[in-house]
Amino acid sequence: MVPPVEGGDAALLPEFPRGPLDAYRARASFSWKELALFTEGEDMLRFKKTIFSALENDPLFARSPGADLSLEKYRELNFLRCKRIFEYDFLSVEDMFKSPLKAPALIQCLGMYDSSLAVKYLLHSLVFGSAVYSSGSERHLTYIPKIFSMEIFGCFALTELSHGSNTKAIRTTAHYDPATKEFIIHSPDFEAAKFWVGNMGKTATHAVVFAKLHVPGDQCHGLHPFIVQIRDPKTLLPMPGVMVGDMGKKLGQNGLDNGFAMFHKVRVPRQSLLNRMGDVTPEGTYVSPFKDVRQRFGVSLGGLSSGRVSILSLAVVNLKLAMAIALRFSATRRQFGPTEEEEIAVLEYPMQQCRLLPYLAAAYALDHFSKSLFLDLVEFQRGLASGDRSARQAELGREIHALASASKPLASWTAQQGIQECREACGGHGYLAMNRLGVLRDDNDPNCTYEGDNNVLLQQTSNYLLGLLAHRVQDGACFRSPLKSVDFLDAYPSILDQKFEVSSVANCLDSAVALAAYKWLVCYLLRETYQKLNQEKRSGSSDFEARNNCQVSHGRPLALAFLELTVVQRFHEHVHQPCVPPSLRAVLGRLSALYALWSLSRHAALLYRAERRCSCPGRRDRSS
Amino acid sequence: MVPPVEGGDAALLPEFPRGPLDAYRARASFSWKELALFTEGEDMLRFKKTIFSALENDPLFARSPGADLSLEKYRELNFLRCKRIFEYDFLSVEDMFKSPLKAPALIQCLGMYDSSLAVKYLLHSLVFGSAVYSSGSERHLTYIPKIFSMEIFGCFALTELSHGSNTKAIRTTAHYDPATKEFIIHSPDFEAAKFWVGNMGKTATHAVVFAKLHVPGDQCHGLHPFIVQIRDPKTLLPMPGVMVGDMGKKLGQNGLDNGFAMFHKVRVPRQSLLNRMGDVTPEGTYVSPFKDVRQRFGVSLGGLSSGRVSILSLAVVNLKLAMAIALRFSATRRQFGPTEEEEIAVLEYPMQQCRLLPYLAAAYALDHFSKSLFLDLVEFQRGLASGDRSARQAELGREIHALASASKPLASWTAQQGIQECREACGGHGYLAMNRLGVLRDDNDPNCTYEGDNNVLLQQTSNYLLGLLAHRVQDGACFRSPLKSVDFLDAYPSILDQKFEVSSVANCLDSAVALAAYKWLVCYLLRETYQKLNQEKRSGSSDFEARNNCQVSHGRPLALAFLELTVVQRFHEHVHQPCVPPSLRAVLGRLSALYALWSLSRHAALLYRAERRCSCPGRRDRSS
Repeated sequence: MVPPVEGGDAALLPEFPRGPLDAYRARASFSWKELALFTEGEDMLRFKKTIFSALENDPLFARSPGADLSLEKYRELNFLRCKRIFEYDFLSVEDMFKSPLKAPALIQCLGMYDSSLAVKYLLHSLVFGSAVYSSGSERHLTYIPKIFSMEIFGCFALTELSHGSNTKAIRTTAHYDPATKEFIIHSPDFEAAKFWVGNMGKTATHAVVFAKLHVPGDQCHGLHPFIVQIRDPKTLLPMPGVMVGDMGKKLGQNGLDNGFAMFHKVRVPRQSLLNRMGDVTPEGTYVSPFKDVRQRFGVSLGGLSSGRVSILSLAVVNLKLAMAIALRFSATRRQFGPTEEEEIAVLEYPMQQCRLLPYLAAAYALDHFSKSLFLDLVEFQRGLASGDRSARQAELGREIHALASASKPLASWTAQQGIQECREACGGHGYLAMNRLGVLRDDNDPNCTYEGDNNVLLQQTSNYLLGLLAHRVQDGACFRSPLKSVDFLDAYPSILDQKFEVSSVANCLDSAVALAAYKWLVCYLLRETYQKLNQEKRSGSSDFEARNNCQVSHGRPLALAFLELTVVQRFHEHVHQPCVPPSLRAVLGRLSALYALWSLSRHAALLYRAERRCSCPGRRDRSS
Repeated sequence: MVPPVEGGDAALLPEFPRGPLDAYRARASFSWKELALFTEGEDMLRFKKTIFSALENDPLFARSPGADLSLEKYRELNFLRCKRIFEYDFLSVEDMFKSPLKAPALIQCLGMYDSSLAVKYLLHSLVFGSAVYSSGSERHLTYIPKIFSMEIFGCFALTELSHGSNTKAIRTTAHYDPATKEFIIHSPDFEAAKFWVGNMGKTATHAVVFAKLHVPGDQCHGLHPFIVQIRDPKTLLPMPGVMVGDMGKKLGQNGLDNGFAMFHKVRVPRQSLLNRMGDVTPEGTYVSPFKDVRQRFGVSLGGLSSGRVSILSLAVVNLKLAMAIALRFSATRRQFGPTEEEEIAVLEYPMQQCRLLPYLAAAYALDHFSKSLFLDLVEFQRGLASGDRSARQAELGREIHALASASKPLASWTAQQGIQECREACGGHGYLAMNRLGVLRDDNDPNCTYEGDNNVLLQQTSNYLLGLLAHRVQDGACFRSPLKSVDFLDAYPSILDQKFEVSSVANCLDSAVALAAYKWLVCYLLRETYQKLNQEKRSGSSDFEARNNCQVSHGRPLALAFLELTVVQRFHEHVHQPCVPPSLRAVLGRLSALYALWSLSRHAALLYRAERRCSCPGRRDRSS
């Protein structure tokens, strides 16, 4: 294990080298070191510094920005780097338990270096590793040390060529043969080929394969995960019956080898079933601690929340990197000026400020949110590990699912749009590959798609909120959730009676003002969506049609506004804590207000329309 | 010259191969062949078919989608392809004069094949060639046949490392030495290196270099173009004193070799000056038909409008390609459905329709606009060529400049956002390089930047409109322009008194309704911007500050709304012509209404706010 970097503040936060940014830095109203300490804490700064120092001093991680690396070479380098990260062993299990935030911090540091590396590492250690650990049982624990030594290298094979979002339509089969006590893994046709599987293209030796489990003379028991060896670890040649390969070039993350696989009656031992949610006896009887297929299915996909939370944090990294590049460039690039002789930094233009600074505020707000949601997830996972079957634990799972499902879209889109804005705001220089904005944009792009298409995921969040309102209307239940993100909705009738009354622009510079408007907006959207949904159903639409017809105009903005409110709320509380150093309060308060007002302003048309409807008599009481 | 493709409709518009799209095609309410004939005309269809057939049958143009081509190889291939296009000689000068739209059609066909090829061809033939032809004089005509035979290969070197948009700050110098009758071209330092010059990186032998012209004992006469040999055409080695090279990898268009050059006291003959706007006598006296530096400068940059109009049409090509890919995929990809057994095409989801169909409508509207603006430009260039110095000709130049300056931003952004939407709407498959959406997005990206940053350009358009209003307010002049794009503004006081009154949603399906709202919006924005600008100036801001302070909130939306209105207006008129075949009227009318309403809806917040302000007493009469 790499020893942590030593030394005090000067070693952790050395001065910037002198240069053209000095003038701007001298004008700062706060100390950047104080801000870094407040945002990260000394222990975390030391941890990150340790990682960056190791990479900086290791020739394997030498960068050649804008280099024209072939796909083969890049994938090879990325694999070697991933292996080296395991060798560095930056984070012990004890340290991770003590400081859970170090796990995403490690992934974020790798993501700052290269998204392909972060995702490759994440897929093997967390996605594959966690699936084996949490879906398997004692008999699978032998895999764990092999995973961390990279003796075996893993991937997670759920998506197929023709089905991704609709996991219920996945068609790979696993028939149990009692004669040999084996499962027969089979892809019925090429549309059922496993597809997009990260790490599978070149280097994975093992895959967690999701397949429909059949036992003799019985119906199908639904999707179950199997650990299947797909390549010989010595030669990397495919195992008999496995056709596996690389999908080739993608828009981004080209260091990652996404692959496909088809299985032709591949026999694996009975013990290959990761059997936490269901098992098959040697004789071929299906047994499960869960009563029905739907419940089992839910548990088997429960791990997806952690994937989404990881993506949230990787999107934030991309946005942070782009902001640093674009703001520094804007502070040194001079173009035009008040006279023909005097040119001013482009950062001085209101246009440039309006284009970039809201994304800077978004980076701070989303960074805080991603950490806080990760800690919520840790609480939930500890509950799972300790066998907590309380109603609160179940509720917490649902709430985190709703938050994670909307936070991945919000963060990945904010990063996508922010990086594009940075790219354009840096003009031609932003378009040069070596300046990295293109790579950041391309590497961020899959964040909008994998672990659930953004638009599909938002429906999870709007459905959660609609379900709570239905429960309230039909059963008189309160809006209450373990993380309290929905508690304010309990007062929705009185919130909807509130009027926005602010006497001056200056007053809006407290994020509490935007927060109040957000609460009104979410209450309004929730009520409208609920009414629209019921109206669709009354006019004869099926549930499926009704939800589809409501999603564009109602469900989608509802889910986004709810999540933005949650992000704003948490950041507002964070920057208004008593422990905030007095010298940072002004700048943090401005960041909070800027993010809140900017996000809210994108709903301006909705707010105007809502105000009109609400002031139209006879509408108010049709709610619920 | 390649002979045109022969045969009737069946050869020009063969049936599509049978496949999974048949069901959708059978449901069409119109004949796609009839639509193609109406949109393009038979002669143009034949021209395009000739080009595509030639490329399809030439192994040099064989495609390997998603291939991992090295930068060197791609640039080499692109050069060879560009040369081959000249050999094919698809378009004779006579044909171009007879059917001017064939020139952009040729560029569009090349752009459909590969943006890098279209831009490489365009830069050499039109940008470099036109600069020599239109900025030079008889003595430069000897270059023209060499350009078309690719005996010499050219580039256009205006931008420098530290200055792009602010062309007045360009610092390369050209000192005249009467002793040898030569100009000395010199780059004072690396910040004055020519930069981003397309074709310069690897293959250009000659450059049109913009430099500040000095004669002995006299002041600087401002930027002038010089034709400078930069490489030996046989060896491609740099000429003495020229340091020239490739800028390396970019976000997109990597087949194009963008380059840099520094000149160390490079001596070129006096005749190298492209002397249409100013010349130096052998003795060293500066002479010019233009009275002042500003006027000369305007003429020397006049060619930029044609660059912007070309970019507009390339952006439209990118959008069209992306739409075809995404819509066809959406019609065949099935995911989820009303029951677990039945899945429906994703194109059936309202969400997918709302994401994609407005961009389809935008592709049609912008395609029509790009053609019509090109024809306006042809009219203007014919006036220039015939020496027309009328007031109308000058006004036409200003109007086209204003339209081109906003249409490049509108089209390049619409394409950028549309391609991104297509990419995401195709999920994982949209992220695979071989499906081309990534390349389209990356190749479209420079359209937002070159020939003027989009946000900077929009200021040209808002300034044009503000100038007209000032002229009206101060001198009582009418709003009148040769293309009539501003004529409606003459009635702005009465337009602002109009109320939007539509009795049903169905009535909005005529684009005339959105047009009327657009006219109101542009009048409102123009008046507000003018007031805001004057208010800024009254409160002590310089003109520079005042314009900067108005641009984000006022000037930018004004320029965009004005251009959108013009696009909507022209498309509306186009699809409501008497010559439209009756069977196409419904579908074209829907496309027109969809584009108009969708574009207008993005200004919804502004419309609500405007309505409020206008209904607030005491505000109305503060205008003008």
